[in-house]
Amino acid sequence: MTDFLTLCRERYSVRSFTDRKVEPEKLEKILEAGRVAPTAVNFQPQVIYVLQSPDSVSRMSGVTPYMFGAPQALLVCYDENICWKNRKHEVEGHPSGEMDTTIVLTQMMLQAWELGVGSCWVCSFDFKRTRELFNLPENIRPVALLPIGYAAADGVASDRHGRRRPLEETVRYL
Amino acid sequence: MTDFLTLCRERYSVRSFTDRKVEPEKLEKILEAGRVAPTAVNFQPQVIYVLQSPDSVSRMSGVTPYMFGAPQALLVCYDENICWKNRKHEVEGHPSGEMDTTIVLTQMMLQAWELGVGSCWVCSFDFKRTRELFNLPENIRPVALLPIGYAAADGVASDRHGRRRPLEETVRYL
Repeated sequence: MTDFLTLCRERYSVRSFTDRKVEPEKLEKILEAGRVAPTAVNFQPQVIYVLQSPDSVSRMSGVTPYMFGAPQALLVCYDENICWKNRKHEVEGHPSGEMDTTIVLTQMMLQAWELGVGSCWVCSFDFKRTRELFNLPENIRPVALLPIGYAAADGVASDRHGRRRPLEETVRYL
Repeated sequence: MTDFLTLCRERYSVRSFTDRKVEPEKLEKILEAGRVAPTAVNFQPQVIYVLQSPDSVSRMSGVTPYMFGAPQALLVCYDENICWKNRKHEVEGHPSGEMDTTIVLTQMMLQAWELGVGSCWVCSFDFKRTRELFNLPENIRPVALLPIGYAAADGVASDRHGRRRPLEETVRYL
């Protein structure tokens, strides 16, 4: 493949998909890249729901306008009973689950892109209703939704991703 | 470079470093991989402190045993005043800062590895004392510390990272 920085630079959020499903072997590889991700104390609290039946996709589309026509999506959650709790955080006992699943999600997002599979990181969906729709128990906490698939003609970005702030604004040397 | 999955599989947490500093051009590339990361609504709330003066490294070593002898570390925070607030989250107005900076951190961690630079993702440090030590204002929230550098002989893992759970335990098809 190309070098890592090029992969990061060329990836962008796909916001319009065709109805072509991701091939099972590609999906497996995407999930595998998430599987090997580091998590706090290696507890691996992630729980990944692959929404791919017409019923599941239709339900999810009912709670967010951001499925973008994708035929599949990864609803990524963590198990509150499994994740590490950080006693040194400003919020005593802060759970690591959101951070853990975000590392998993990032590795899946980049792996998808390398395989020519687009995605869009979505957090704007009704969390409570989503848990009800899929009968997720109280200890399963949604973090983000990743519609995945192939970009439709109007989902191909010519200008890649939005403008990023220069390092001078975000980095300090101490 | 090698393919992305191999990069993810071969990366492991380095827990003993030599005192050799990361070359400025490599550090710049690591920061650049974080710079281009996606964040909620593209708000880019990350604030990255590159701890590299002997005084800063010494202070940080005073609040965590997990600097592992690294001559440099990235203390990655977010600006609470800049980050997006999620109104649809179960916790109304949940800030996206921890997720945003975790995506930035993941891209930096993987970019470092591609360049032969090791790191270890550390969250076990006294957050309040760290903010005091470096005079971080109230709106700057630490998320994680990433000591970076070159693995010492006893920091080279022969068994790579810890055992990961099989996909059957963490993935459900709906």
